[in-house]
Amino acid sequence: MYIIGERINGMFVNVKEAIRNREAKVIQDLALAQMAAGASALDVNVGPAVSDAKGAMIWLVETIRQVTDAPLSIDTAKWDVMSTVIPMITGEKIINSSKADPEIAGRCVKLAVEHGAGMIGLTIDANGVPGNVDGRVALGAQIITIAMEGGLDMNKLFVDPIILPVNVAPTIPNQCIQSMSQLRMFADPPPHLVIGLSNLSQKCSNRQLINRTYLAMAIAHGLDAAILDPLDRELMEVVATAELLMGKSIYCDAFLEAALNRQTPK
Amino acid sequence: MYIIGERINGMFVNVKEAIRNREAKVIQDLALAQMAAGASALDVNVGPAVSDAKGAMIWLVETIRQVTDAPLSIDTAKWDVMSTVIPMITGEKIINSSKADPEIAGRCVKLAVEHGAGMIGLTIDANGVPGNVDGRVALGAQIITIAMEGGLDMNKLFVDPIILPVNVAPTIPNQCIQSMSQLRMFADPPPHLVIGLSNLSQKCSNRQLINRTYLAMAIAHGLDAAILDPLDRELMEVVATAELLMGKSIYCDAFLEAALNRQTPK
Repeated sequence: MYIIGERINGMFVNVKEAIRNREAKVIQDLALAQMAAGASALDVNVGPAVSDAKGAMIWLVETIRQVTDAPLSIDTAKWDVMSTVIPMITGEKIINSSKADPEIAGRCVKLAVEHGAGMIGLTIDANGVPGNVDGRVALGAQIITIAMEGGLDMNKLFVDPIILPVNVAPTIPNQCIQSMSQLRMFADPPPHLVIGLSNLSQKCSNRQLINRTYLAMAIAHGLDAAILDPLDRELMEVVATAELLMGKSIYCDAFLEAALNRQTPK
Repeated sequence: MYIIGERINGMFVNVKEAIRNREAKVIQDLALAQMAAGASALDVNVGPAVSDAKGAMIWLVETIRQVTDAPLSIDTAKWDVMSTVIPMITGEKIINSSKADPEIAGRCVKLAVEHGAGMIGLTIDANGVPGNVDGRVALGAQIITIAMEGGLDMNKLFVDPIILPVNVAPTIPNQCIQSMSQLRMFADPPPHLVIGLSNLSQKCSNRQLINRTYLAMAIAHGLDAAILDPLDRELMEVVATAELLMGKSIYCDAFLEAALNRQTPK
């Protein structure tokens, strides 16, 4: 399971403050804590309403790189920021994100291939997020096709069927998992499948329960990557257990300890 | 979700003792507690190595019927016990279980139809439990066919792909969920799909975590019934949450309370 840690995001008040005041330690501690908890990569998002988004992103990336070589998922809707920052990053990086529109996906694939980056492709286009399984699969297939034509390896592509909050879009969680089973069939090897898990439970009660229950359900349908909070221990336990139950790891009495300490042997 | 409470089983020491000493209150308390916790039905199993299995089963059924009209799942491999007890039970009952062999499934379907009972059909025959998805699906299809030919409504049939402990059979959990997706396609409406959940984690560490993670994964593939411990609150929370995420119930902030108290309004 490829875990992209979500905690370096200006949506969170402590990160917003740290960006504003250029407090490196807050960011570096979040980077190291997420990697120690089992993250495979770190999402980096300056958050909404930052006056100098590009400057803030560059500062975040440089600040994180002082303490870890972790893959960085550059999370911005601004092409100017993305196209400036991706070439600057040493080591692994991911474009987060592209949409399915041919022009947008095409330029993102080009940027990814030129700089050896991964790419997250969302099943959304100028018409918005599809309201059914077929629409999600069609846009996912479009992204896969554009990636293949552009020379992006499938193991660098992450298709995201876009989960929406269950309290406002009750049929979407099931649509997303049904889409995943189909999207895995479009290429061999298939692209990765990813979701931004926390979005599922925005403004819901029992958020962690909803998140970890759905994560198990999605893994059962082939999800192999997720943007989530690796500091949620119970969530990471579900990741380890679901992978065991999918036959991706072998049971031993200490399977949890083995899985949760895999990234950071002591 | 059709929850069959597993706790009245002579495998448990307190139940074994209660059967031996004919302590009605122990059994009746377990019956009422499971129904209050959200069970839809009660499994009844005298356990291994009981000298008079038929007498013990009759006593259990009569003892439970003094306090609840709950559907009873008569859990015995002894045809003599099954064929004696099923006709005696007032109210709803389930034959637990039949195998897929035509002769065994045929006589179970006949008994079920004659007495208005449900039936659990295991994907096992004289050759044992299949070691792959195709084998499970083939035996499940055989059970469905025999049930249809015998006049058993699909809403009375529960197909059980037989989960085995993940510590000794690591590929079986995934095989079972893949089988479920296929078994749902053999009839419209489809039969119920059921598993004996606790068997998954026999002699494992972190049993409850394994059980509730797998339950979410299986529900995502169409599982709509399970023999499990309804007194495991966290497990029942996963049931409620997974049903929400499958779009079978609508989110409200009190969805957990609403779901967990559905069976027993106060």
